[in-house]
Amino acid sequence: MTATETLSLTEIEDLAFRALVKAGTTEGNARPLAIATAMTEADGVSSHGLAYIPIYAQHVKCGKVDGSARPVIANPRPAVLIADAATGFAHSAIDVGFARLIPLAREMGVAVLAIHNSYNCGVLGVHTRRLAEAGLVGLGFTNAPASIAPSGGAKPVLGTNPFSIAAPDAQGNAAILIDQSASTIAKSEVMKHAREGKTVPEGWVLDADGHPTTDPDAGLKGSMVPSGGYKGVGIALTVEIMAAALTGAALGTQASPFSGTAGGPPRTGQFFVAIDPGATAGADFQAKLAHLLASFHDQDGARLPGDGRKACRERAQREGVVVDADLLAKVRALV
Amino acid sequence: MTATETLSLTEIEDLAFRALVKAGTTEGNARPLAIATAMTEADGVSSHGLAYIPIYAQHVKCGKVDGSARPVIANPRPAVLIADAATGFAHSAIDVGFARLIPLAREMGVAVLAIHNSYNCGVLGVHTRRLAEAGLVGLGFTNAPASIAPSGGAKPVLGTNPFSIAAPDAQGNAAILIDQSASTIAKSEVMKHAREGKTVPEGWVLDADGHPTTDPDAGLKGSMVPSGGYKGVGIALTVEIMAAALTGAALGTQASPFSGTAGGPPRTGQFFVAIDPGATAGADFQAKLAHLLASFHDQDGARLPGDGRKACRERAQREGVVVDADLLAKVRALV
Repeated sequence: MTATETLSLTEIEDLAFRALVKAGTTEGNARPLAIATAMTEADGVSSHGLAYIPIYAQHVKCGKVDGSARPVIANPRPAVLIADAATGFAHSAIDVGFARLIPLAREMGVAVLAIHNSYNCGVLGVHTRRLAEAGLVGLGFTNAPASIAPSGGAKPVLGTNPFSIAAPDAQGNAAILIDQSASTIAKSEVMKHAREGKTVPEGWVLDADGHPTTDPDAGLKGSMVPSGGYKGVGIALTVEIMAAALTGAALGTQASPFSGTAGGPPRTGQFFVAIDPGATAGADFQAKLAHLLASFHDQDGARLPGDGRKACRERAQREGVVVDADLLAKVRALV
Repeated sequence: MTATETLSLTEIEDLAFRALVKAGTTEGNARPLAIATAMTEADGVSSHGLAYIPIYAQHVKCGKVDGSARPVIANPRPAVLIADAATGFAHSAIDVGFARLIPLAREMGVAVLAIHNSYNCGVLGVHTRRLAEAGLVGLGFTNAPASIAPSGGAKPVLGTNPFSIAAPDAQGNAAILIDQSASTIAKSEVMKHAREGKTVPEGWVLDADGHPTTDPDAGLKGSMVPSGGYKGVGIALTVEIMAAALTGAALGTQASPFSGTAGGPPRTGQFFVAIDPGATAGADFQAKLAHLLASFHDQDGARLPGDGRKACRERAQREGVVVDADLLAKVRALV
C-alpha cells in the first residue's frame, strides 16, 4: 500500500506557490500556476497536478521557462487579442489574456486570444472552464512537440494536441467540459509505463518504422497512435493550425521537448475562442443545453464528458485531495 | 460494367439548377445549391453530389424544405451574425451569410455566423473552403438527427456531426481542408449497404441494445460507432454545442430525418467561425503553414487531409466528371 496524505485545495495551492517562487518564479507568475495546480488536483487529474511542480521548478532553473517573464498583450483588431508569453509560463499569459478576453467576448459577441512564445499549459480544460464560469462558451487548442505521424507515414509531424470546449449553465458553472487529446492515450501514460518497465497494450504506440509495438521505449522513439486512425490525425492537425499556425508559435516539429532540460524554451502556442451564447442564440442556448444534458443523464450508465471531473471537484472541496506521500516529500523539499 | 457519361462542371451545375427550379425552388435558392453540387462532384464526393438532387427535389415538394424561403440575417453584436434559414436550404443561408461574414471577419479579426431553422448543408468542406479562398481560416460545424449513443448508453443522442477546417495559402487556395464526421464511417455508407442487401464490417454500427452487429438494418435502428470510442462522442458533442445549442437550432434528438418525407423541416443548424490569420499572426501564419505542409509532403506516402479532393478537383476542371448513367437519367427526368 502506498503512503498518502490528504491536503486541502488551499494547502496544495500554497505548497505549489512556494515551490515555484523558491525556484525563481516571480510571485505574479507563480500564483496562476499554483491555482491551476490545485484545480487540476481537485479535478482528479493527478498526472498534471503537483507531479508537475518539480518539472516546472527544474525548467525555471535551466531556462526552459523564464520565471520572471512578463506576457505582453496586443489588440490588433477589434475582436482579436494576441499574447507574447515571452517564454514564460503559459498560465501567466492566459491569466492576463483572459482578463481582457472575457469582457471583449461579451462586447463583440466573440473574441479570440492567440498566444505564442509559450509553454505547456497543463490541463487545457482548467482554462476553458474559466471561460464557461464567465458565462461564455470557451474553445481551447494547444500544441506540443511532434509525436503523431501522418496517415501513410511514420515520422511524427504533430503533437498529441488536445482541444477543449466548455459550455456554461445559467448558474455560471461548466455544464459540459470536453478536454481530449488527439492520440488514443496520453503520452504521459506511455512514459509512466516506460519508467516502470511495463509493456503497453497494442494500439497505443508505433515504432520508428510505423509498426505496432508493446514496448513503450520503442513507442517513445516512434510515434503515438492517433485516436480513430486518420480522423485523429485530422484533430491533431486542426489543433496545430489553431494553436501554432494561427498564433505564429513553434510547430510540433520545431518545439523543444516538454520534458528534460535540453533545447531551451519550447515556444509552443495556445488559441482560445470565447463566444457569448446570449449573442448567438439568446435564451434558446440554455433551453437547448438543458435538453442536451437531459438526453445523457436520463440514460442509465451514460457518461457525459466533464461529469467525472465535476464529481471529483465536489469531493475535493469537501474532503481535500489524497496525495502520494513520496511526491509530497519531493515537492516539500523544493520549498 | 456500369454505364457512365462525362459531364463538365458547368453542365452539372446547370442540370442541378434546372431540376431544383422545376421542383419549385426559386432561382435565387437553386443557384448556390447547384454550385455546391458541382463543387462536390468536382471534389470526388459523389455520394453528396447529383445523387442528392432527387432527394432535394422530393423535399421541396413535400415541404421538408421551403424552396422559396428567404434567409434573414441579423448582426446582434459587432462580431456576430445570426441567420434564420426559414426552413429553406442551408446553402442559401450560408451564401447570404458569408457575403457579410467575410468582410466582417477581416474588419474584426474574427467573426461568427450562427444558422438555425436550417437543413442538411451537404459537404461541410465545400463551405469552409470558400472562407479559405477569401484568405480566412474557416471552421465549420453542422448537426444532424441523432445516431450516436453516449459512452455507457445505447440510445442515440448525437448526430454523426461533422466539423471542418480550411486554411488558406498565400495564393487564396485552401492549403489544408479537413472535413470529417464523428462516426467511424458515414451513415450514407451504411444506408447504401442496407439498400444493396450487404453486411457491413464490424465496428461500423451497433444494434438497439448497443451490441456490435454486421447487419446494416439493425445498425440503422441502433446507432453509429463513434470514431475512437468516447473521443468520437466528444467530437459529436462539441459539434452539437456549436451547431445546435449556440445557434438555437433543433438538437439531433429533436430533428426530423434528413431522408424520407416524414416529420417536416429538420430545423438543424450550422455554425461558422472565420478568422483572419493576418490579424492573429501576421506573416508568420504563411511561414508556419508552409513548414507544416512540407512536413507532410516531404514524407513518402504521407497523406495530407484535403490533397485527395484537390487532385480530384484539378482533374475535374480539366476533364469533367464521370457520372453514373442511371443517376443521370433520374436527374434529367426531373427537368
